[in-house]
Amino acid sequence: MNETKHNLKIFTTVNEVRAFVREQKQAGKTIGLCPTMGALHEGHMTLMRAARKACDVVIASVFVNPVQFGPNEDYDKYPRQFDADCKKLAAEGVDAVFHPTPEEMYPAGYGTYITVENGITDVLCGARRPGHFRGVATVVTKLMNITQADKAFFGQKDAQQVAVVRRFVADLNIPVEVCMVPICREASGLARSSRNSYMTAEEKQAAVVLSRSLRKAKEAFEHGEHTAETLKTIVRAELETEPLAKIDYVDLYTYPALLPVDVIDEPCLLAIAVYIGKTRLIDNVILGD
Amino acid sequence: MNETKHNLKIFTTVNEVRAFVREQKQAGKTIGLCPTMGALHEGHMTLMRAARKACDVVIASVFVNPVQFGPNEDYDKYPRQFDADCKKLAAEGVDAVFHPTPEEMYPAGYGTYITVENGITDVLCGARRPGHFRGVATVVTKLMNITQADKAFFGQKDAQQVAVVRRFVADLNIPVEVCMVPICREASGLARSSRNSYMTAEEKQAAVVLSRSLRKAKEAFEHGEHTAETLKTIVRAELETEPLAKIDYVDLYTYPALLPVDVIDEPCLLAIAVYIGKTRLIDNVILGD
Repeated sequence: MNETKHNLKIFTTVNEVRAFVREQKQAGKTIGLCPTMGALHEGHMTLMRAARKACDVVIASVFVNPVQFGPNEDYDKYPRQFDADCKKLAAEGVDAVFHPTPEEMYPAGYGTYITVENGITDVLCGARRPGHFRGVATVVTKLMNITQADKAFFGQKDAQQVAVVRRFVADLNIPVEVCMVPICREASGLARSSRNSYMTAEEKQAAVVLSRSLRKAKEAFEHGEHTAETLKTIVRAELETEPLAKIDYVDLYTYPALLPVDVIDEPCLLAIAVYIGKTRLIDNVILGD
Repeated sequence: MNETKHNLKIFTTVNEVRAFVREQKQAGKTIGLCPTMGALHEGHMTLMRAARKACDVVIASVFVNPVQFGPNEDYDKYPRQFDADCKKLAAEGVDAVFHPTPEEMYPAGYGTYITVENGITDVLCGARRPGHFRGVATVVTKLMNITQADKAFFGQKDAQQVAVVRRFVADLNIPVEVCMVPICREASGLARSSRNSYMTAEEKQAAVVLSRSLRKAKEAFEHGEHTAETLKTIVRAELETEPLAKIDYVDLYTYPALLPVDVIDEPCLLAIAVYIGKTRLIDNVILGD
């Protein structure tokens, strides 16, 4: 265990976290967990602030989880900048960061996986990234068990992830409250993402089309357009104005059940995935909540 | 919530258990969990006594878990005798029993399952009962989360189950100690099982061949016979003396990893499954521990 000058405790083993958590629980403290893959940006900081506000003790995790990446995805390339991450966490008054090795999380002989099989993982990113949510469910369950968190904080940018986490937390009776924090955007409207760092300046400018397309649909919705197909067409049309954008999906489902919908009469997720050059970006808006 | 005259609390909902557990934890009490499918016999009582000895508060569960039964197995036929079970639990000083409906455990929209995929579930009963240990891992995780148990008690008769539980508890970092209680036998040597009630008197007598065959192998092992193939042959030969017995498997693996072994030089599980008439019985002995 190391301490930075800002009193951020840095743990690399499960046992260190357990000892810290035991101490805090015995003192009657509530614990907030913010799971991250590092490369922290302002979006992550909104999670830390929500946790800081709601809980006595805030534990962030920084772990690029190999199990949630597909064989042709960007696991090796994913940005890692732990020292910079620690500075940001300390500045937000986070109490501890858990930064394990893959071997600490998945030691030799490891064999247990959690799957959510009720259709919620068969759409959107789940359909494009087989095994992704199995990896997410497995690592998040581990992190919840290790930290014994009372509340766990996730960003709405990964809205399907939040739906999956809420599902398995309820199904497995994990005693934690799942809290969703709104999407954090740059002034341009671009949703903050660690993967934004893959883009050139020109691509970043082009990427603004994602949030712009969603905003147009939201405006149409607020003016009474509740037909799913029409709203998706509005988004597609806007995305197609940007030559650097290649649509992966534009979809609309009920939220959080993620069931198909024709006319919106309950909270729905309008979600998009778009390649800007080689970078795959996601964004979404929840309509009717 | 109902109370019997022996102060056994009976809970049928997750929320009732949670409220009880919260109270006990706040009072600093440790909690022992004994998961059962009911039809309690003396074997279960050895679990209750071990829990009673090791923990401040003992919670038993009585739940015939549909998810761990295959489509052609005995889910409907499995004996259910909850009132008699409660009397036995009360007599052992068990504090509470959790007796949920299938709908309470698996409500509409349920979709989360836990699998152990490192080979441990591909042998013995796991090979014969596809999905069985997925059902066990899922329900036991739920019960551990609901009861927030400090220790959970399982019988060695289901030795593969104990190995699977130990595996997923370690893998998912569930903060519970898994305790294995020795096999409880009738005077004849027959391992106690709720499924023994399926047998006629004649079949019960024939079923003694299971424990006898294992005893012969154990004696040979203790006299220096450490070759797996020879020990299995001893068991098979003894089982074949009984006309009512039909062998499902006779197998020997390292324990608890359940890896193949030729010559025993570490703790190993000699496990058998045998049909006596239509009743499938299992028994085992651990050699070299």
